[in-house]
Amino acid sequence: MTAEEFRRVGHALVDWIAEYRTGIERLPVMSPVEPGAIRAKLSPSPPEKGSSLESITEDLNRIILPGITHWNHPGFFAYFPSNTSFSSVLADLTAAGLGAQCMSWQTSPAATELEEVVMDWLRQMVGLSRQFTGVIQGFASTATLIALLCARERSTNYSQERGGLQGEKKGLVVYASEESHSSVWKAARLAGFGKDNLRLIPTDENHAVIPKKLEIAMQEDDERGLRPCAVVATTGTTNSLALDPVGDMTVLARLWGAWLHVDAAMAGTAMILPECRWMWDGIEGADSIVLNPHKWLGTGSDLSAYFVRDTEQLIRTMSTNPAYLRTQHDAEVKNFRDWGLPLGRRFRALKLWYVLREQGVAGLQARLRRDLQNAQWLMAAVDAAPDWQRTAPVHLQTLCIRHVPAGATDGAELDAHNLRIAEAVNRGGRAYLTPSILKGKQIIRVSIGAETTERRHVEALWAELEAAARSLPLAVK
Amino acid sequence: MTAEEFRRVGHALVDWIAEYRTGIERLPVMSPVEPGAIRAKLSPSPPEKGSSLESITEDLNRIILPGITHWNHPGFFAYFPSNTSFSSVLADLTAAGLGAQCMSWQTSPAATELEEVVMDWLRQMVGLSRQFTGVIQGFASTATLIALLCARERSTNYSQERGGLQGEKKGLVVYASEESHSSVWKAARLAGFGKDNLRLIPTDENHAVIPKKLEIAMQEDDERGLRPCAVVATTGTTNSLALDPVGDMTVLARLWGAWLHVDAAMAGTAMILPECRWMWDGIEGADSIVLNPHKWLGTGSDLSAYFVRDTEQLIRTMSTNPAYLRTQHDAEVKNFRDWGLPLGRRFRALKLWYVLREQGVAGLQARLRRDLQNAQWLMAAVDAAPDWQRTAPVHLQTLCIRHVPAGATDGAELDAHNLRIAEAVNRGGRAYLTPSILKGKQIIRVSIGAETTERRHVEALWAELEAAARSLPLAVK
Repeated sequence: MTAEEFRRVGHALVDWIAEYRTGIERLPVMSPVEPGAIRAKLSPSPPEKGSSLESITEDLNRIILPGITHWNHPGFFAYFPSNTSFSSVLADLTAAGLGAQCMSWQTSPAATELEEVVMDWLRQMVGLSRQFTGVIQGFASTATLIALLCARERSTNYSQERGGLQGEKKGLVVYASEESHSSVWKAARLAGFGKDNLRLIPTDENHAVIPKKLEIAMQEDDERGLRPCAVVATTGTTNSLALDPVGDMTVLARLWGAWLHVDAAMAGTAMILPECRWMWDGIEGADSIVLNPHKWLGTGSDLSAYFVRDTEQLIRTMSTNPAYLRTQHDAEVKNFRDWGLPLGRRFRALKLWYVLREQGVAGLQARLRRDLQNAQWLMAAVDAAPDWQRTAPVHLQTLCIRHVPAGATDGAELDAHNLRIAEAVNRGGRAYLTPSILKGKQIIRVSIGAETTERRHVEALWAELEAAARSLPLAVK
Repeated sequence: MTAEEFRRVGHALVDWIAEYRTGIERLPVMSPVEPGAIRAKLSPSPPEKGSSLESITEDLNRIILPGITHWNHPGFFAYFPSNTSFSSVLADLTAAGLGAQCMSWQTSPAATELEEVVMDWLRQMVGLSRQFTGVIQGFASTATLIALLCARERSTNYSQERGGLQGEKKGLVVYASEESHSSVWKAARLAGFGKDNLRLIPTDENHAVIPKKLEIAMQEDDERGLRPCAVVATTGTTNSLALDPVGDMTVLARLWGAWLHVDAAMAGTAMILPECRWMWDGIEGADSIVLNPHKWLGTGSDLSAYFVRDTEQLIRTMSTNPAYLRTQHDAEVKNFRDWGLPLGRRFRALKLWYVLREQGVAGLQARLRRDLQNAQWLMAAVDAAPDWQRTAPVHLQTLCIRHVPAGATDGAELDAHNLRIAEAVNRGGRAYLTPSILKGKQIIRVSIGAETTERRHVEALWAELEAAARSLPLAVK
């Protein structure tokens, strides 16, 4: 493709995106396609000859778009907000245009130094002290795996430099909430601790870890000859945005010499609001923290912010230094290849820079406060409705609700009823939300915070939920 | 930002990229900035108020661009080709515009099914049989870590579902070439095997693993009560593109029940040329293979292609299945979140689709053959020059060379001389190459294959190397 063709198709594609985003509300939020439908429209073998970009754009409309679930739709209430704001789109375009590999300082100095600066901006924005240093990782799941690997190496005085975890005599144990994210369980398995050495600590009625239960578990493990290695506190669990007591968990981790990792993937963004910082009170005692600007803040995936206290420890766990990667400035600069799992790195700092520059801290705060108010509105509506229950506090923008018609009792039938309500709303195409299970009960989970979601969309969702609940009466036994 | 502003700035940015790429040859390949120079131009604190996108673009020119090392420059001969072709740039723009999270089939069916299809196209293109299934991973380093984790779990009958690696009685060992990539060493450490259980097998005069040495190492470990777990064969080592004997290594791996992973990160792209497939002869015996379309093929980072024989084994190692991720179609579809490390996934299949559609297999083959011919030209020039030596065969597009003036002998002085030559060329700004160390000797490594690199650029590089060698005479002792 020539530069002139790139201009022509590029302009058309920018317009296509502008139109897509402008008209997004007319599309069904969740893709309605059946399994295999997209695949059936694609050629089973690769093209021998090249095509015009225009023909590819046609196929984008004809084949791809119907199979997209629209995460930037104002009716997106599923999973978590994953906003890719216009400025983030432009940053990704810039990064691809530059096409730089950012594994080492010398392979693109601006990428490394911009990352240092914007991650320090973010540190200030969420109110962390200078004892923390930030680095971009792919996803929170990656960051949590890194945290557990660092914990493992600290506890074993760097067993990887000797016989590895398999050479250790004393079993290491990881602790997390029973409501912790599946990526914590996965990381504990992948890091070699094993499922049997992951303790899922019971939670209270607000779905937060009960510190006494954690204390007992650590004590018991010690008595059994095991060694507490890492504690994961969650600020904003996936199901209900429950807030683990970070301060208490920090004290217990310290007592046993364990690593304290805070998974604030979702709720961490809210810490740019000073009025929310009580939610991770005690955070300064953490060894590592992850929060996801690619969720609620507005930068597209992948941009997970990982803050650590001891950068030397991170580097010692992650670094390799072969001849072909050495450069003359290595002693004076940061080489972020040694701060995470993969060697290769894209120029992701641009996304955070564009979004923070374009919107400013005040702009981002205003949008977050709008979402909190919308959640409060929906909470009031649910609480005022006799047939609906809330099964968790509304700390931020996520609600866990359940339709309980008069006379209904807990059980499989009521669970199925609530699942049917969620599926009916999702099929309707105007809103998309996630059914889940909380403390053994089927819930309907509403996560507010797409950039485009205004009060009217939350009102419309509530009307849909009510209508679905009415039209799907609980079957009489 | 409104959609109209996005159009205006987006068009301007497309033009900016077109101009950047058109004028790239006038820029110094390696960024000449000093450490800290970029950081010093950026504000130390985040902006309170938002700015116009135009002011951000100004800063892109003023602050960022001087700190970029230009990987798409025709004078880029360092590391490896990392082409981000125009069609890949447009695909990244599209993916960001759609802003879809592609962790599960339902969270964007088109992303999953397009990935299935284009990865199968790639499988056919590199001549792999249907026993392999492809999935996109971030980087080769990530894919290699996944391979070693899968090997660990297969060898221990899924120890992660019990007490983890720390519960195993018999030590597991990993084998790779002494010339294998640092990511193999890192993966062996992170997966818990430990440095002491990684055997770096000696190589022959072509820098390829000597099968007899591997056999002896495996035998000795068995006799010591250890268990061979994984063998990594490299098709195209980083230093010299050496070709390990995949077939022989497969036989040995099978004999000991070890996993055979092929790291073809760089050379794998060349397998779209049927005349190159002898280089990984025996590949059908592999358990897993990684190759990087984001290197030589033209798709921007990150797009690493991971092919596995046993998808159920991969899923069992990587999956978790919490309630909030379950959807009604799970039994009928692929959920790629369970095929790799992170939960989150970007819509990366678009890049491969755009590039393959736009260029066609024939177009990609023609470009690769051009690069091979350029490498052959440079090889002939080096071989004809009395003061230069080649220290490795030229299988593809990488040359390892060394300036050895008449009367010079191996040693620190000659090494320093060659390092000075490389640094002089890099400082000159018209070309950028990687000095490295091969079998204990300083070499100058020339990696040909930027999309824009034509014969004249290789000729100019050779003239620069000759000039630098002449102007930097070996100091007389």
